[in-house]
Amino acid sequence: MDEHGYCLVTNDDGWDSPGLAVLKKAVRPLVPVVVAPESERSAVGHAINLLTPVRVRRVKRKGVCDYICSGTPADCVKLGVKVLLDKPPVLVASGINLGPNLGMDLLYSGTVSAAMEGAILGFPSVAISLVGSGHLHWSTVLAVVPVIIRLCLSVGMPSDVLLNVNIPNVSLSRLRGYRITRQGQARFNEDYQVRRDPRGRTYYWLRGNFKKVPAEKGSDVEAVTDNYVSVCPLRLDLTDYHFQEVLQKSLSKFI
Amino acid sequence: MDEHGYCLVTNDDGWDSPGLAVLKKAVRPLVPVVVAPESERSAVGHAINLLTPVRVRRVKRKGVCDYICSGTPADCVKLGVKVLLDKPPVLVASGINLGPNLGMDLLYSGTVSAAMEGAILGFPSVAISLVGSGHLHWSTVLAVVPVIIRLCLSVGMPSDVLLNVNIPNVSLSRLRGYRITRQGQARFNEDYQVRRDPRGRTYYWLRGNFKKVPAEKGSDVEAVTDNYVSVCPLRLDLTDYHFQEVLQKSLSKFI
Repeated sequence: MDEHGYCLVTNDDGWDSPGLAVLKKAVRPLVPVVVAPESERSAVGHAINLLTPVRVRRVKRKGVCDYICSGTPADCVKLGVKVLLDKPPVLVASGINLGPNLGMDLLYSGTVSAAMEGAILGFPSVAISLVGSGHLHWSTVLAVVPVIIRLCLSVGMPSDVLLNVNIPNVSLSRLRGYRITRQGQARFNEDYQVRRDPRGRTYYWLRGNFKKVPAEKGSDVEAVTDNYVSVCPLRLDLTDYHFQEVLQKSLSKFI
Repeated sequence: MDEHGYCLVTNDDGWDSPGLAVLKKAVRPLVPVVVAPESERSAVGHAINLLTPVRVRRVKRKGVCDYICSGTPADCVKLGVKVLLDKPPVLVASGINLGPNLGMDLLYSGTVSAAMEGAILGFPSVAISLVGSGHLHWSTVLAVVPVIIRLCLSVGMPSDVLLNVNIPNVSLSRLRGYRITRQGQARFNEDYQVRRDPRGRTYYWLRGNFKKVPAEKGSDVEAVTDNYVSVCPLRLDLTDYHFQEVLQKSLSKFI
């Protein structure tokens, strides 16, 4: 591992999130370079700015320069790699997200999309989330992240794969270990609140809770429920190769 | 096929795009219900609005009500299904996008994300793009879309799969047929323009072209290059099952 290599650090909770500060610490001995959104960008998915330009502010803290970007998490990674960093990063790390990125939910995640962008650009990339609320067990995170980074940098990540990691919010003594998982089927249970503005006009606000589904065997949801760190490899090739064959057989009937 | 069923029609180019008007026509005999963004939402990926509410305007044209939404394509589908439609759609159709959604590029696509949202909500869903520029061969689109819809509604789409369709912009006589494809590896070739605003401050604007890579065999890129309609099944489960095994074997070395 190139100990003087850069780790591009970003998130979707914004540059001043405590999760980002912990991640910055946890990636050492890699040299963290923060390129993070100026404010919360939850549920932006893999949005990038094409119609609007992005701006960057430089903030020096303890002699180190953080970059604060007006764009999305994916913009941060792209701009970091293409413009701001003076050499390519050895790792792109996104998080620590305050909340889960599990099951179908991760399709909306700005945290995951930042790591996805890292993979698109060809770098080992990881998205890390802390599952739980209330008292946050940062010491567990500080113990887990170095393991994940060693795994990610040594295993030989294919260029179209990223790691999606979810850490249960428990003390280190209650953490039961690590599981390689698959993305579960859990989806948000959601509806819209219908409200009226001061002028009496209607607007809609999405309200959702993570749907409790029986945790499927081998899934990311099951792992964190059982107090294991979930390490799930995600790929950029979304093709459903199984269903491809079904379609192939049916096609001739319809043309 | 329930000929009186609704087809939720959306896009990422905005409600007044000519592509949407053609799609609306092409989905008949299904009853098109338009819920589309009020302006262009290119490259928004799977963004949804959580921090901001969304608003809707109703526009009646020829006795039919279109819904124009302040949100993203995924917001349009979610709000359409959960609030605006008086019964569930039989199909969610997104497009016709003016430009390709091929290879890695589709990870940024608002058009694809709308169909992805349709699949998340459990409906047969399809994203349709017209690949090319200049004179647009809408008559080809009008001939192709009914074939795609019949395929999509008859093949028994699994609830976590959607179809990503790219139609080459050629006359019907030059169209060579249909191919079931996989997502190619093509990526954008991009950089940032560095500009200065009237106050002398720097801003960055992404500039990209679809990178010409040798079209891989069986890929979506190859199909449209050969003047075939590309029909690519995409799945919501992003797990890389092959690399999962590699990770599993390596894990014990790192903990």
